Amino acid sequence: MSGNSFGKLFTVTTWGESHGEAMGVVVDGCPPGLELSEEDIQRELDRRKPGISGISSERKEADEVKILSGLFAGKTLGTPISMLVWNTDVDSSPYEPLKDIARPGQADLTYHLKYGIRDYRGGGRASGRETVARVAAGAIAKKILASRGIHILGHVVAIGGIRARRVSVEEIMRHAESNAVRCADLEAAKRMEALIRAAREEGESVGGIVEVHALGVPAGLGEPVFDKLDAELAKALMSIGAVKGVEIGAGFDAARMKGSEMNDALYIEAGRIRTRTNNAGGILGGISTGEPVVCRIAVKPPSSISKPQRSVNMEQMTEVEIRVTGRHDPCICPRIVPVAEAMVALVVLDYLLQAERR
Amino acid sequence: MSGNSFGKLFTVTTWGESHGEAMGVVVDGCPPGLELSEEDIQRELDRRKPGISGISSERKEADEVKILSGLFAGKTLGTPISMLVWNTDVDSSPYEPLKDIARPGQADLTYHLKYGIRDYRGGGRASGRETVARVAAGAIAKKILASRGIHILGHVVAIGGIRARRVSVEEIMRHAESNAVRCADLEAAKRMEALIRAAREEGESVGGIVEVHALGVPAGLGEPVFDKLDAELAKALMSIGAVKGVEIGAGFDAARMKGSEMNDALYIEAGRIRTRTNNAGGILGGISTGEPVVCRIAVKPPSSISKPQRSVNMEQMTEVEIRVTGRHDPCICPRIVPVAEAMVALVVLDYLLQAERR
Amino acid sequence: MSGNSFGKLFTVTTWGESHGEAMGVVVDGCPPGLELSEEDIQRELDRRKPGISGISSERKEADEVKILSGLFAGKTLGTPISMLVWNTDVDSSPYEPLKDIARPGQADLTYHLKYGIRDYRGGGRASGRETVARVAAGAIAKKILASRGIHILGHVVAIGGIRARRVSVEEIMRHAESNAVRCADLEAAKRMEALIRAAREEGESVGGIVEVHALGVPAGLGEPVFDKLDAELAKALMSIGAVKGVEIGAGFDAARMKGSEMNDALYIEAGRIRTRTNNAGGILGGISTGEPVVCRIAVKPPSSISKPQRSVNMEQMTEVEIRVTGRHDPCICPRIVPVAEAMVALVVLDYLLQAERR
Amino acid sequence: MSGNSFGKLFTVTTWGESHGEAMGVVVDGCPPGLELSEEDIQRELDRRKPGISGISSERKEADEVKILSGLFAGKTLGTPISMLVWNTDVDSSPYEPLKDIARPGQADLTYHLKYGIRDYRGGGRASGRETVARVAAGAIAKKILASRGIHILGHVVAIGGIRARRVSVEEIMRHAESNAVRCADLEAAKRMEALIRAAREEGESVGGIVEVHALGVPAGLGEPVFDKLDAELAKALMSIGAVKGVEIGAGFDAARMKGSEMNDALYIEAGRIRTRTNNAGGILGGISTGEPVVCRIAVKPPSSISKPQRSVNMEQMTEVEIRVTGRHDPCICPRIVPVAEAMVALVVLDYLLQAERR
Repeated sequence: MSGNSFGKLFTVTTWGESHGEAMGVVVDGCPPGLELSEEDIQRELDRRKPGISGISSERKEADEVKILSGLFAGKTLGTPISMLVWNTDVDSSPYEPLKDIARPGQADLTYHLKYGIRDYRGGGRASGRETVARVAAGAIAKKILASRGIHILGHVVAIGGIRARRVSVEEIMRHAESNAVRCADLEAAKRMEALIRAAREEGESVGGIVEVHALGVPAGLGEPVFDKLDAELAKALMSIGAVKGVEIGAGFDAARMKGSEMNDALYIEAGRIRTRTNNAGGILGGISTGEPVVCRIAVKPPSSISKPQRSVNMEQMTEVEIRVTGRHDPCICPRIVPVAEAMVALVVLDYLLQAERR
Repeated sequence: MSGNSFGKLFTVTTWGESHGEAMGVVVDGCPPGLELSEEDIQRELDRRKPGISGISSERKEADEVKILSGLFAGKTLGTPISMLVWNTDVDSSPYEPLKDIARPGQADLTYHLKYGIRDYRGGGRASGRETVARVAAGAIAKKILASRGIHILGHVVAIGGIRARRVSVEEIMRHAESNAVRCADLEAAKRMEALIRAAREEGESVGGIVEVHALGVPAGLGEPVFDKLDAELAKALMSIGAVKGVEIGAGFDAARMKGSEMNDALYIEAGRIRTRTNNAGGILGGISTGEPVVCRIAVKPPSSISKPQRSVNMEQMTEVEIRVTGRHDPCICPRIVPVAEAMVALVVLDYLLQAERR
Repeated sequence: MSGNSFGKLFTVTTWGESHGEAMGVVVDGCPPGLELSEEDIQRELDRRKPGISGISSERKEADEVKILSGLFAGKTLGTPISMLVWNTDVDSSPYEPLKDIARPGQADLTYHLKYGIRDYRGGGRASGRETVARVAAGAIAKKILASRGIHILGHVVAIGGIRARRVSVEEIMRHAESNAVRCADLEAAKRMEALIRAAREEGESVGGIVEVHALGVPAGLGEPVFDKLDAELAKALMSIGAVKGVEIGAGFDAARMKGSEMNDALYIEAGRIRTRTNNAGGILGGISTGEPVVCRIAVKPPSSISKPQRSVNMEQMTEVEIRVTGRHDPCICPRIVPVAEAMVALVVLDYLLQAERR
Repeated sequence: MSGNSFGKLFTVTTWGESHGEAMGVVVDGCPPGLELSEEDIQRELDRRKPGISGISSERKEADEVKILSGLFAGKTLGTPISMLVWNTDVDSSPYEPLKDIARPGQADLTYHLKYGIRDYRGGGRASGRETVARVAAGAIAKKILASRGIHILGHVVAIGGIRARRVSVEEIMRHAESNAVRCADLEAAKRMEALIRAAREEGESVGGIVEVHALGVPAGLGEPVFDKLDAELAKALMSIGAVKGVEIGAGFDAARMKGSEMNDALYIEAGRIRTRTNNAGGILGGISTGEPVVCRIAVKPPSSISKPQRSVNMEQMTEVEIRVTGRHDPCICPRIVPVAEAMVALVVLDYLLQAERR
């Protein structure tokens, strides 16, 4: 209710401030008897860590996960799984001069107005670091989904004005993790990387678009009319800090299409009803069709830029000019890929568990 | 939990099939002592009704709302408000030949796969007619919001390939309801209307984009980290049948912007911290800033078109060709305006009530 | 959230004021494909109606249920089932003189303090008549449970100081519905009936104890640690208007027992682990054992008595003496039996659906 | 949803197994700006620890709480407060011989049947040790309540057959914490203590009754019709491991009373409507009246006794005789007092926050 929990049957509650003691998550509703280890979680956390110099933050967190409950002899008990990651490489000094400043594009202003108190160090609760907890929980969801033949696959499709060409699922699998921007169009990937470096040089940042496919999702997931599968995906993805838009299937292109172009023709293949195209993104009436579920998110350029910006001192209520220094990502898209995958995994698993009870 | 309820403190539960006895909604959590009458609801329902011949469905529902509980002497009691609209102009005959057919782009297939049983008449529960209940509930939410200086304002910004020019809030107020397509750019409105008529002529349909402004939203609404105001708006809007995408503020344009373009510069006006631009769409870190909340939805072209389509008989598991006849909208955008407004109103009110408890 | 809904997967939302237009309920989460008719509901509603002259209220409601949605061709669709009962025999005149009076033991005072407005006619929303909706929803739950071999069986075990002897399940089945007080100890039943008539004569009322057995409940229902099966039963039963206490199994007797008396010895029967006694009431650690689930509720004497009582006029803030006239039950226990059964059925079904998803 | 969370606006999620790494809790919804320290929590945890030799367990847990998030400069941030207590004095050896045995009266059987896997050491998740987390969360709730003049006060009113005389609130305040059994009737307390020691001598255990008063609760808390204040209290209290019954106000005595005895006469005092007696336990129609809220719980004798008991080996499916050794409480009532207080505090605070939003 207070907003730090997500999911109905597979429920995730995250906690932690960026420069506090630790970041953590409690996962409730994990089926019992699942083999699970810290390595399963660590693998996903490592994908989220800052990567190649020049295109991501230089914060050096080990981000080693500890599982504190819910496991016995290497298997899940069906009881809550509590996980945490200690905050180790914390340097709050760059934040001291900014402690009363509302950085443009950040949550400083709104946390100040809502709570009247905030942990200004590293963004506090509003920091992108909160996604550590999401990725940890998502790692469990992904493991369960994989055991049922469902795979979640994310990649970058645009950075700034550079759009990757349309790629196949096979190309995503083969290439997305092979380069620093997580783009499966290798030629575009190079230009994207150059664009990010250039942005950094000029004290700027750039946005982009991330796409996630959920493969192997069975038909029948989704609860009409408000808890449609696409509605919950939209919420899950929009709840990621830098996301300003969500699309399912054809998305905004649908607004320019005619009915005969948009409608996916139906046919029968191997005794199953399928669609020739997938403009619906695998969802009709809020319920999965059995085709791949496809969604995309618009990721804004990170707000922390070293260019001078007009801002406000919230205590003195004066206008000021600031430059945000510190270790920031000039483009968050590559690191958002595992986060977006995690959120999609949480939704699909939750709806899978809901559907299984029928 | 089973998907037919929305909202935490102002909770709406809808029920009803398109060709069943009635459509209805129970609103729980309405503050007591509010003056309320059936006229308040009827006004909004009338906005949702099929409109000008040639650009909308010809179903002739009186859609007269009845309030069955929660009122005493013209005021709300704080108890559940039950409302219903009887289904009167029901003609199920056009659906008989299609009863085993999965119409492309419709929920026929997924309801069949999920439930194994469905009311095929008029789309049953998946019909757009379900939005009668949303609009009725939204009418109460709007009335409460208006009493606190919050106004929800929707309009059409694109139909097919035609994009309206950028308009001011004043223009929306003055012009949006003055024409059949609910577009505040009157010149574009004419071209849109022509486009819709042409689509109908050729047995086609067209999509578009609807924008909703929430004006007067106080700062501080939204519950991080999962229940961000934008996340809940995304869910609310994506839960409307034909919606394939949701944007907040700059939306997908943010993906092409640089940090210095995207960040809204802060300044002080009349003792309040404001932003020069509103690329954030009135939301930072999932919490309202006090600027207008702005969102847009991508609306797909209606699936029911009279052009021949490839489809499947789900009982016989054979491929067939169909033409969908009956009384359908060639473009749903104008009628979706009040529905989108209702969903935004429900979210904003719910979060307002959540914030007021602090 | 606002209190008029119950259940997570099988969710019931009730609405209606005693002297308003109607009483109703929306049931969300009913599995699809269940045969259901108004007769199934009516049967249970008839058990709740005022019965034998002299021991119950003389309000003559037909209480005919109408199902407005969720059914197609006699089967449930998996969509919300909306039911209502029109309020027909409404005579609000006896309530006019009491409209500003807080009747002792009633919710008049607290509704006044909480909402500042109330429908004083017939108790408004706080009326026992609200249980019509619970019984209607419970009827569906019972039908589903019965199809899985689970039966809910209620009876009266005490009225005033008269305690029935311990009876077997067979005796309850045979005798509980055979007499006006729903007591399976026929000899005690006669004395109870006399006690109730005597109370009425003197303008008094009497309380009692109702017991409910849930037979055939499989092992494994209940969600530790807060949503234990017994915890949810306690809430469900305590939410019935006149209930002041809830016991599971040995209940308050457990407070006087030694461990060796309380612990139910385990043994094996037909390949299943069973207990020799059932002091646990079929629940250990909040999870069903497979033995019958047994609970009891303390029902207070109805507050409406014709004897003079000291009270307060809430508008004038003066002390007054009142006599409550009108058509009231001198003892509510017999009519609470189907209500308590309904609440137990709702809990057991909800937990059954929760357990089935594993 | 999976049962390890409690509360809607002040939401508590607990985790941890008795012999796992730690016990913990995440508190979401705590208002911002509250001064809070580990000492505030520790004080309540210390009240829960095993006490005087001979009448409680000899497990020696330091139970030192660590706060990991949600605080900044000694004040709450309005973000989730994560707390944990490391499990230090863990000796699992006595549980090895019992690992396949279902101890009578324990959750061994039901966890085995429900999950197919369990942490048999020390009761695992079903251990009374889980209440560490409840007490830690309750300590925060109590601190907030106290700042608003609401105080939660628990004491023991019966042990085995020994019933304390009726005591005043002042006596409870003065005497309850002064003796090992937490009974405010000092004479009875001595006999109770002797009874507990005697039970221990003979390898037995005894039950009892604990009463909790919530003083200063304002009128208007509680959400009809299902989420009545008493209904939620019943759930909260019944969710404590050893509780088999819950009463509000007159409780089961109400079943033997006449209407004129049960109804609390109303009068006016200092401009406020009050009741002469408090049989209602401070709640009418599920909403607080402004009088003290009074509830009682029946606590069963602890299941772990050293007397021989008939039981079952769940793996081999054979009947066995067991004696449960280890460090167990012969009577849990004194240690349940702070747990029951915590649960009452959680409910009252949650409903206070719900009511404040109006």
